Amino acid sequence: MTNKLKSYKWFLDALSPHESHVHGIDSIVCEKQTRFQKVEILDTFSYGRCLVLDGKMQSSEVDEFVYHEALVHPAMLTHPDPKRVFIVGGGEGATLREVLRYPSVEMALMVDIDQEVVELSRQYLPTWSAGAFDDPRTALKYLDARRFLEETNETYDIIIIDISEPVEEGPAYLLYTKEFYALVMDRLSPDGLISLQAGTTSYNNLLNFGAVYQTLKQSFPIVSGYQAIIPSFGLPWGFAVASKRFDPRDVDPKEADRRIKERVPGELKYYDGGTHQSQFVLSKPVRREIEKQEQVIEDNQPLFTYN
Amino acid sequence: MTNKLKSYKWFLDALSPHESHVHGIDSIVCEKQTRFQKVEILDTFSYGRCLVLDGKMQSSEVDEFVYHEALVHPAMLTHPDPKRVFIVGGGEGATLREVLRYPSVEMALMVDIDQEVVELSRQYLPTWSAGAFDDPRTALKYLDARRFLEETNETYDIIIIDISEPVEEGPAYLLYTKEFYALVMDRLSPDGLISLQAGTTSYNNLLNFGAVYQTLKQSFPIVSGYQAIIPSFGLPWGFAVASKRFDPRDVDPKEADRRIKERVPGELKYYDGGTHQSQFVLSKPVRREIEKQEQVIEDNQPLFTYN
Amino acid sequence: MTNKLKSYKWFLDALSPHESHVHGIDSIVCEKQTRFQKVEILDTFSYGRCLVLDGKMQSSEVDEFVYHEALVHPAMLTHPDPKRVFIVGGGEGATLREVLRYPSVEMALMVDIDQEVVELSRQYLPTWSAGAFDDPRTALKYLDARRFLEETNETYDIIIIDISEPVEEGPAYLLYTKEFYALVMDRLSPDGLISLQAGTTSYNNLLNFGAVYQTLKQSFPIVSGYQAIIPSFGLPWGFAVASKRFDPRDVDPKEADRRIKERVPGELKYYDGGTHQSQFVLSKPVRREIEKQEQVIEDNQPLFTYN
Amino acid sequence: MTNKLKSYKWFLDALSPHESHVHGIDSIVCEKQTRFQKVEILDTFSYGRCLVLDGKMQSSEVDEFVYHEALVHPAMLTHPDPKRVFIVGGGEGATLREVLRYPSVEMALMVDIDQEVVELSRQYLPTWSAGAFDDPRTALKYLDARRFLEETNETYDIIIIDISEPVEEGPAYLLYTKEFYALVMDRLSPDGLISLQAGTTSYNNLLNFGAVYQTLKQSFPIVSGYQAIIPSFGLPWGFAVASKRFDPRDVDPKEADRRIKERVPGELKYYDGGTHQSQFVLSKPVRREIEKQEQVIEDNQPLFTYN
Repeated sequence: MTNKLKSYKWFLDALSPHESHVHGIDSIVCEKQTRFQKVEILDTFSYGRCLVLDGKMQSSEVDEFVYHEALVHPAMLTHPDPKRVFIVGGGEGATLREVLRYPSVEMALMVDIDQEVVELSRQYLPTWSAGAFDDPRTALKYLDARRFLEETNETYDIIIIDISEPVEEGPAYLLYTKEFYALVMDRLSPDGLISLQAGTTSYNNLLNFGAVYQTLKQSFPIVSGYQAIIPSFGLPWGFAVASKRFDPRDVDPKEADRRIKERVPGELKYYDGGTHQSQFVLSKPVRREIEKQEQVIEDNQPLFTYN
Repeated sequence: MTNKLKSYKWFLDALSPHESHVHGIDSIVCEKQTRFQKVEILDTFSYGRCLVLDGKMQSSEVDEFVYHEALVHPAMLTHPDPKRVFIVGGGEGATLREVLRYPSVEMALMVDIDQEVVELSRQYLPTWSAGAFDDPRTALKYLDARRFLEETNETYDIIIIDISEPVEEGPAYLLYTKEFYALVMDRLSPDGLISLQAGTTSYNNLLNFGAVYQTLKQSFPIVSGYQAIIPSFGLPWGFAVASKRFDPRDVDPKEADRRIKERVPGELKYYDGGTHQSQFVLSKPVRREIEKQEQVIEDNQPLFTYN
Repeated sequence: MTNKLKSYKWFLDALSPHESHVHGIDSIVCEKQTRFQKVEILDTFSYGRCLVLDGKMQSSEVDEFVYHEALVHPAMLTHPDPKRVFIVGGGEGATLREVLRYPSVEMALMVDIDQEVVELSRQYLPTWSAGAFDDPRTALKYLDARRFLEETNETYDIIIIDISEPVEEGPAYLLYTKEFYALVMDRLSPDGLISLQAGTTSYNNLLNFGAVYQTLKQSFPIVSGYQAIIPSFGLPWGFAVASKRFDPRDVDPKEADRRIKERVPGELKYYDGGTHQSQFVLSKPVRREIEKQEQVIEDNQPLFTYN
Repeated sequence: MTNKLKSYKWFLDALSPHESHVHGIDSIVCEKQTRFQKVEILDTFSYGRCLVLDGKMQSSEVDEFVYHEALVHPAMLTHPDPKRVFIVGGGEGATLREVLRYPSVEMALMVDIDQEVVELSRQYLPTWSAGAFDDPRTALKYLDARRFLEETNETYDIIIIDISEPVEEGPAYLLYTKEFYALVMDRLSPDGLISLQAGTTSYNNLLNFGAVYQTLKQSFPIVSGYQAIIPSFGLPWGFAVASKRFDPRDVDPKEADRRIKERVPGELKYYDGGTHQSQFVLSKPVRREIEKQEQVIEDNQPLFTYN
């Protein structure tokens, strides 16, 4: 390790008002203010190409496969036979890519509000989607996903929520509320599961993860929090699977490996049976904190992590 | 998350020449140049009180319990009956604290080269040692641990190596070499185990963890890498247990919980059976990388991570 | 010039929300929250020992002599025979030191609201005051200078206002208003002058300097803005002399040098006749901007530079 | 002033290994590695559009007029009738722009080694050159200026050296040596003058300015150091005029204003008679330091400011 810094353009990813993860910028590939957010695609020295939305790291060339495999496969492998998948957000196309690895999937509908993020990702982050947008099973709509779900009667086997965190004043928090999860629950088929990212699991910063966990428990009988290490995020990261009937923790490592082999041609880079099991083992301080969290996120009661 | 920074004094912990973890400093408790290193004790807003050696975060009030429990208990719980423990380094006294939780331990000998770090830690980080230095079973020597081990004929049940990373030109790397591990192996009793921290497990930065792992395998029949999440370190962190006879992965969660209950009065804050098992499950990219690492650290072949 | 940074503790002096001057910290000499402000005394690599109040650089070992000579001597040399000097603020004692260089001065009354700043400065910045606090001509009171001036009937030949900038919500702005300057005018003897620091003269940041200049012109017939280069401040710095009768620009370089020789034993480190004249020559863009500035600071109309 | 930072992409302009000037980046207009240097054009919040070469600020939209007027007019106004002007470097075209303001100028020959900097400047910094490259009096060559001057027999009335600093290992230092200045002297017409930028005049950092000043004195009978305030540079900046016969300090403010009026149609934004005179008045500590500087830069004795 060293204290000699060699960069002079820096991306400062503020984890809190008093803590930052700082990346030397090699070059800026593109930047654009869309109707919804500031989009930047940066080439960094440490994590290669990165997508940054409103100043926050979203995914990096070095470890996006970890994030996206960790987000998609727990639910997909737990469901007995996922055919219809709905993706909320997921602009880079990598969540879609992981979903489409399953030949069993007949349709994958992705609804992202920001068309420009999708187009910039296709152009500048082609390895993220890896052709997924051109798959005949893909349907892509640029709409408010909540409104779309309210207006449809369709149901889905898997719903994956791949959006930014619920914090601050942005409209994204309406995709993290008790009311939204009730709606999602209603649009799931009887064997259905949902999965989502749920903020950091850092020991002194568990409000977000805990509140999402407790909010999910208001609607779903089975909620399984888990975590993955995505170094470009600067802090350890939390996810959750919520389901009506199947508990991912009942799928043991051997069974998970068997299902991967059976269902997914080719090879996963990150996910396997061992990770499937161990990721659900939250450590004592994390478990304790999220179990005792009392805040539930509601439409008229958003989460404020920093004031 | 936010981009509004509120601090104006910052500790910049360089993870590489192009990546830093940055902490707002509330106040500086003490700073001193010892014969061996620059010691600083900082009160940060995010991680409370922190020990910083030569500009690198060593442990923080918020998550030192994770680091020290993860370092000590895997080896202690795997050994059938640890009585004699040797600690290399461990200046803060928290490794000693965790070792002395076991009433079975008859003596704990800690050898740290830097008396001033120990004294500053006793004064300014009292909750780290929590009285451990005053325990009648403790022996404390301010010496070069390698020379001490070379000159003694004693053997130990557990040897815990709690020092900085082997990088750069410092003498610390002589406590990470094949020659040193052969010596440590020789000073272990027949059922003995060693444990140590082994650098980050970040996917793009596995040289250190991989080289330590391969170097250990030169001397020990059983080597088990594992990891823990210590957010104040900025990156995920690796450890290893190496042993003559017992494999910690053979201790299943229930057995680990049983041993904790039987051997450790009071309660551990971080460690339990679930963590014992899951921490050894390294993810595919980490496993792949360390297995194929070919560099072995030798006395005359140090590790250079940045040039 | 270089891009290799060697420090890991940094003092970030925010010049605006988008511009900072950053200093490697060698060590922190002391820090204290007084009733009025956060006081920090830092040893930096570039500017030696520095006084920092509420996160802003106040003066540094390397260039404090420039700031204090530039603040004091223009008024002192313009007055025909300064005997009674009043200092508003001036906690470090260096303004007092420069005033007391003149044997003609019979009394120097310094009124600073924050006793702790004065005491910390005496202890940790002894070369700033250089014995000035012990001079029998010194009187020192820890009071609100405005209230003191309201309640006294005394008059002074020179009044030097050595305080932080008038920005933000702090009470300091009440020492920069039209009402305060009218009071100060009233407490000046007929030949009297005042001097003060007035914020940066950076071309894109002239609101503060211009508003102070225009506010002074509401009360004083003669107002002379001038500037000095104090690198530790990060931006060029403005001052003003305001007076009833004497214009400092009428003192030509030779006359200024003659008066220095006659009035000041020993040698000034920064100030001389050439600087006396040239410092009043503001460049075209600065002149233009402050002449057209329309904002006047009033008790119920503070200056907001950043919102 | 404030400590709330609002940017998350920062350009860190290292003034030394322990001091930086940091700018929030709004967007990156272009970046390119040429054969000679890394070129970046950034839109910053504080200084608008900026040209950055090898990580160092070269000129900004907010204050480039100060730099270029300060570089060009002292020599041009001191010469009795400048007709032939040679510019070493000057890639942005703004030095050329200021030279061509004089209808007396019959030809301006600019020799810059880096064609790409010139082309990027024309494209992205059009207000810098403001049409100067299209002036029929302009000749532009992409060559090593030193070699060009060695091979020509032509002489020039004014030679302006507008290049980066002589520090570090780059070839630029060969345009700052005693040997180069002897060559330049030889290519000047009998009434000729040269001008150049000469590094910071910050009190603790005068090695560069002093060494250039002393090196010029090896070749020229008259050398006049001066300074200007260019806030985007982070530190106060030094220049020099060196000449065979005419001393710019002999042109008093009135005469300078008269010559500006007579010679330059339109209006200068920064330069006038008052600035002409006052800029040559270096303060005592600067004068003292450069007069006693003993280092002379020679072809085989470059200047190392940081090691």
